[in-house]
Amino acid sequence: MKGFVKKILENQTSCAKECATAFAPSNIALCKYWGKRDPQLNLPLNSSLSISLGSLGTKTTLSACTKQKDEIWLNGTVQDTNSIFAKRISEFLDLFREHLNNSFFTVRTENNIPTAAGLASSASGFAALVLALNDWAGWNLSRRDLSMLARLGSGSAARSIFTGFVQWHAGHQADGMDSFAEPIDVVWPDFRIGILTISDQKKAVGSREGMNRTTNTSTLYKAWPSQVENDLKKLHKALRHRDFTRLGTTAEHNALAMHATMLAACPPLLYFQPETIKQIHRIHQLRTDGLALYFTIDAGPNLKLLFQKEQQSAVQSAFPELTVIAPFSENI
Amino acid sequence: MKGFVKKILENQTSCAKECATAFAPSNIALCKYWGKRDPQLNLPLNSSLSISLGSLGTKTTLSACTKQKDEIWLNGTVQDTNSIFAKRISEFLDLFREHLNNSFFTVRTENNIPTAAGLASSASGFAALVLALNDWAGWNLSRRDLSMLARLGSGSAARSIFTGFVQWHAGHQADGMDSFAEPIDVVWPDFRIGILTISDQKKAVGSREGMNRTTNTSTLYKAWPSQVENDLKKLHKALRHRDFTRLGTTAEHNALAMHATMLAACPPLLYFQPETIKQIHRIHQLRTDGLALYFTIDAGPNLKLLFQKEQQSAVQSAFPELTVIAPFSENI
Repeated sequence: MKGFVKKILENQTSCAKECATAFAPSNIALCKYWGKRDPQLNLPLNSSLSISLGSLGTKTTLSACTKQKDEIWLNGTVQDTNSIFAKRISEFLDLFREHLNNSFFTVRTENNIPTAAGLASSASGFAALVLALNDWAGWNLSRRDLSMLARLGSGSAARSIFTGFVQWHAGHQADGMDSFAEPIDVVWPDFRIGILTISDQKKAVGSREGMNRTTNTSTLYKAWPSQVENDLKKLHKALRHRDFTRLGTTAEHNALAMHATMLAACPPLLYFQPETIKQIHRIHQLRTDGLALYFTIDAGPNLKLLFQKEQQSAVQSAFPELTVIAPFSENI
Repeated sequence: MKGFVKKILENQTSCAKECATAFAPSNIALCKYWGKRDPQLNLPLNSSLSISLGSLGTKTTLSACTKQKDEIWLNGTVQDTNSIFAKRISEFLDLFREHLNNSFFTVRTENNIPTAAGLASSASGFAALVLALNDWAGWNLSRRDLSMLARLGSGSAARSIFTGFVQWHAGHQADGMDSFAEPIDVVWPDFRIGILTISDQKKAVGSREGMNRTTNTSTLYKAWPSQVENDLKKLHKALRHRDFTRLGTTAEHNALAMHATMLAACPPLLYFQPETIKQIHRIHQLRTDGLALYFTIDAGPNLKLLFQKEQQSAVQSAFPELTVIAPFSENI
């Protein structure tokens, strides 16, 4: 991984600022990242496509730390050096230290994602950290390069370097230099996402382990790459034509197909809770009754509803507890 | 289909009895029949393996009817000629009429399967009907041939011609003459099945339509044949060695993989109810706690638990509402 970092930073000189701050949005995949071709470099087996969550994400402030270790803060509280959170950030910083005057850092991380929403904060977290590093050290890297650096921390962080609809290209090269994210030039002001929290309990099997078990034991996973290939084509077409029905159908289909590969793992991975199934049946019934409402679901029990501004009041009547996000407009 | 019947019956002469009665057991697949290569001849895309349900099934009594139409009874009540049940049986009898002195029949069908148990009665129904026809007409067909005739009424009826563990071979021939069931020579007196009824409501999408939608739209279905190939090998090995862990693991894996192919259909097929998921999580927890308990599930919300005599009291304590079946022993 350090070799990869060296390649990206080879023509850069560091010029440390006192303090640098950056924000990166969280994102939700409409075509899921599911399976790695290289776990070291976090290279995915398939390309993925996401929508970023507007102003929901992570703000990270970076400054040099005079102690001989990093000091990691999360939402105003200093984290124990041995905590998983602090260790993951420090180990990530280790990849860069030789390009950063071997400095240690005070990292202040602020997540404004409702913690109960079951949204991954590692994507926005590593993206914000990389953006802050770039600013702190004055690297002036391209966003494409920054997406590849963020990828090393968490695969989906590659997509959080951009806003709006984003594609992360799987790439083919073994060195990972062609596995980067890029924005899709589509603005869709009426697009809405609703976070439907089913459970904020810790998952029995983490998504990294779930991904490994699926790729290692699920026979049906063999058909996943062709599923993705079809879905990406459909999503691009839907985005080009602002065809919400096609977009919703495809995103829902893709998410359920990912869960299908997990269900067929051994031992089986069943992230659904009873309430997940109840709400899925409800969404299907509402759709039968004429409401243009779809969902996506990650490796967990919570649902993310997909709809447009026109349906917002009907959707909020049906799901009063919904957190609604307008990715292209701060004022909804 | 009539051509197929003619081939089977070409050397038979009919010698009508006044009345003939036959019983056939219901069966539950441990490796599922899912997908057809020929819908007319009911030829499956994959072989399947089942366990029959002892004395639970269908008793059918057949006698010639003097009216110019069939008279179909179900559990003591005569059925309307235009009912789905009566039509399905009459249309099946039409296939045979030219070999049966062009007779019409009084068919008395008695199912002793609890109707609320969500168990298919078409398998045992068509098997019992074919067995009764064979007796009535004095055909003396082999069970292999009878399984092929029963198959024309309902695919899984081929397996209900035998008791115990049964394999239905998919076959390769276009004429269907190599797609028959045969018994597996394994007696397992301690084997138990528990019927856990979640819902007895009619399914929103019938299993025949579900099968078609899956094979037509589910990309993951492409990997189903290799799933089955592996699972059949494992099941045969498990049966040879009376290896219950391997048998339970494989049967559960196979059923969930079938549901996975449905989940990845478009529109998605989600036969799970919230209660299904709750009970699956409960079974997994009981297994984590040391109980040798597995399940299988067909295209519906109900679960069929798999365990052995040694675990019966523990399983019944956990699921007091369970209907327990001992396929190899009437006295449990």
